[in-house]
Amino acid sequence: VTAVAKRQDMVVHQRDPLNAESPPEVLGAAMQTPLDAFYMRNHGPVPKLDASTWRLRVGGDVDCELELSLDKLQERFPPRELTATLQCAGNRRAGLIAVRDIPGEVPWRGGATGTASWRGVALRDVLAVAGLGSEAKYVAFLGADVSEEADPPQPFGASIPRHKAMAGEVLLAWQMNGRPLTPLHGAPLRVVVPGYIGARSVKWVTEITARAEPSENYFQASAYRLLTPELDPDLAPPGSGVALGAIAVNADILSPADGSTVAAGPVEIIGYAFAGGDRHIVRVDVSDDGGARWRQAELIDPPAPWAWRRWRVTFTLPRGRHQIVARAWDSAAATQPERAEHVWNPKGYANNAWPRVNVDAV
Amino acid sequence: VTAVAKRQDMVVHQRDPLNAESPPEVLGAAMQTPLDAFYMRNHGPVPKLDASTWRLRVGGDVDCELELSLDKLQERFPPRELTATLQCAGNRRAGLIAVRDIPGEVPWRGGATGTASWRGVALRDVLAVAGLGSEAKYVAFLGADVSEEADPPQPFGASIPRHKAMAGEVLLAWQMNGRPLTPLHGAPLRVVVPGYIGARSVKWVTEITARAEPSENYFQASAYRLLTPELDPDLAPPGSGVALGAIAVNADILSPADGSTVAAGPVEIIGYAFAGGDRHIVRVDVSDDGGARWRQAELIDPPAPWAWRRWRVTFTLPRGRHQIVARAWDSAAATQPERAEHVWNPKGYANNAWPRVNVDAV
Repeated sequence: VTAVAKRQDMVVHQRDPLNAESPPEVLGAAMQTPLDAFYMRNHGPVPKLDASTWRLRVGGDVDCELELSLDKLQERFPPRELTATLQCAGNRRAGLIAVRDIPGEVPWRGGATGTASWRGVALRDVLAVAGLGSEAKYVAFLGADVSEEADPPQPFGASIPRHKAMAGEVLLAWQMNGRPLTPLHGAPLRVVVPGYIGARSVKWVTEITARAEPSENYFQASAYRLLTPELDPDLAPPGSGVALGAIAVNADILSPADGSTVAAGPVEIIGYAFAGGDRHIVRVDVSDDGGARWRQAELIDPPAPWAWRRWRVTFTLPRGRHQIVARAWDSAAATQPERAEHVWNPKGYANNAWPRVNVDAV
Repeated sequence: VTAVAKRQDMVVHQRDPLNAESPPEVLGAAMQTPLDAFYMRNHGPVPKLDASTWRLRVGGDVDCELELSLDKLQERFPPRELTATLQCAGNRRAGLIAVRDIPGEVPWRGGATGTASWRGVALRDVLAVAGLGSEAKYVAFLGADVSEEADPPQPFGASIPRHKAMAGEVLLAWQMNGRPLTPLHGAPLRVVVPGYIGARSVKWVTEITARAEPSENYFQASAYRLLTPELDPDLAPPGSGVALGAIAVNADILSPADGSTVAAGPVEIIGYAFAGGDRHIVRVDVSDDGGARWRQAELIDPPAPWAWRRWRVTFTLPRGRHQIVARAWDSAAATQPERAEHVWNPKGYANNAWPRVNVDAV
C-alpha cells in the first residue's frame, strides 16, 4: 500500500484488496496517466512474484506447449509498443448507485480508467509459435492473485475470443509509460487487451490456455456480466446475462466537479471520451443547460485506435445553477444513452449514460 | 422497374432513381429477405452491363494491376459465402423527420434493410494477389451507375479502411440468396461490406483502387456523413462532419404497425435488431408502457457475426392506448439512445433511437 501512500490524492475505496481510482485533475492533465496515479482494481492481495523464477506457460489446444521465462519471452519475440486506455467495467458505477443501490461493489466514480503506453510482445506472436488448434475459439489467461471474493476462492482469470487474441494489439507487457511494470500493476508480466474492459487485462499472468469455450473462471463466468435488472446476482447461475468484452462509447466530465461553485463568467469544462472494440471517438458535445442545446468540444488528443481523447470547451456561465452534460460519438455514429436508469444493471457495469455535473456560478 | 411491379407491397419512395423499401411483414417472416422484396437504394439509373464484356480493374497503390473478367475472377479465387445484413444509412430517417424536416432525402421507415446470403470471392484474396502498397490505407470502389445527384455528376463510389478491406468478410459477390445477382442489385458484381452502411457496398463495381486517403467521390466525401445539427448540408464543405462506416446498435418494431388497432388480449410484437462493426446483438428489451418497464424478447435468429436477429415477445394488452418501445443491446453492452431528437442530424442518417409504436387495443 506504499504506492498509494505516495499519492495522497488517490481516491481509495478499499485497502484490502486495494481498490483506488485516479483523481480527476490528474486524468485531465495529460493523455498518459502517471504510473503512480493509475487506477488499481484488485480482487485479492498483490502476489509477490520473483521475476527470475516466474514462468509463463502456454497450453491447451496448441500444437506445442511453451514455458517461457521473462528473458526468453523478451529474446524470442519482437517488442511491440502501443498506447491504450484501460477502463474498469465498473467505472462510473456511482451514477448507477444513485439510481438504485448496488451493494457489495466498489462505488467507482469516473477515475477507474487511465491511459498508458505499454511495451511487451504481441500475444499473436506467441500464439503463432505455439500453434493455435482449430477448435481453439477462446484464449484464457490466469493470474497469480488468489481472490477470496470468488466462489470458490481462485486465481483471477479471464478469456477473450480467438479473433481478438490474434489481432496484433493484445500485448503481454512488462513496461508501462517507459518504466518497468510495478508489482501493483502486474509485474513481471500482464496482459493488455486494448478496447476491452480492464478485467480481461489479467495482471501477474502465469498461464495462457487455448480453449473451445470461454474460461470457466469465476471472473469470466459469473462476475463481469451484464445481467438484466430483475436478476439477483447472488442467485443467478453462472453464465447468466452477457459476458462483457469490448467497451461501449463513454465519456466523463473531469472538471468542474459536481456540486462545485465556480466564478460566473468563462468556465472551462474538461473531460475524456473513449470507445472500445474497433471504434474511436470522433466527436464530443457538451451542454450547459442539461442537454437542451449542445456545442462541440475541442478534442485535445489526436485520434488513436486504442486510446481515449480528452476534450475541453469553455462556456460563459451567468450566475445561477447550471447542469453541464456531455455525450461522445464514436466512429460508428453511436452515442450515449441519456439516463443512467436505462442502463442500470444489478452488478453496476458499463454505465455510459450522459455524465451530468451541477455547478453554481456566483 | 419491372421487379418492383412484381411486388405490389414494396414501399416505393421514388421511381427515378428507384428507391423502395421492404414491407415490414416480409422482413419479419424470415431471417433471409426474399430477393424480390430486398430494399433498393439508388442514386442514378440502373446501368445496363453485359457480363461477358464487363471487367473489374484493380489498381492504385498495388504491386500489380489486375483486370479481371467475371469468369477469371471465379476461376482464380476460392468462392466464399456468408449471410450479412445490409442497412441503408438513412434507414429509419422518418423518425428523424418527425422531429424536424429533412428536405431532399428519402423518408425511409424501417425497411431500408435486409439480410441475404452472399456468394463471391473475398476482397482480401484479390488484394493479396494485387499486393497492397504500404501507403494504401484505404480501398476505394467505383460503380458503373452515374448519379446526377452528385456535384458534379459522377459514378457512385465509396472507400473503406485497409483493415476492413483485408478482413475476410468483405466480398465481391455475384450471388444473393443462392441466385444470380439481378441488375437491380448490382449484377454482374457488387461489393458487400458486412457491418458497414449499405452505401459502402458498391453495386455494379468496375474499379477497385488502393489509396493513401479516403475516396474523394461525392458519396464518400460529401454525402453519407454525420453532420452536427447546426450545419447546412448544402453549404458545408466536403469533409465536414464524420464519414459513416460501421453501423451502431439499432432495432425496429415490424409488427404491429404504428397507429394500428389490435384486439385486446395477447399481442405478438415482432422486430429486428442489428449491430455492425465487430459486434452482434445479445439482447432485446421491449416495453408496452413507453419504456417504464421492460421484458426481454425472444431472439428468433441465432447469433451470427454479420446478420441481424429478429425477435418477438407477446404482451397481454388491456383495452386502451399503449406505446410499444424496443431497445437492443450489442456485445459491447451498448444500447440505443432514447430519443430521436438527440440523434437528429441534417442529412438524417443513423437513427438508432428507440423505436416506438402506438397501438389501440379494443
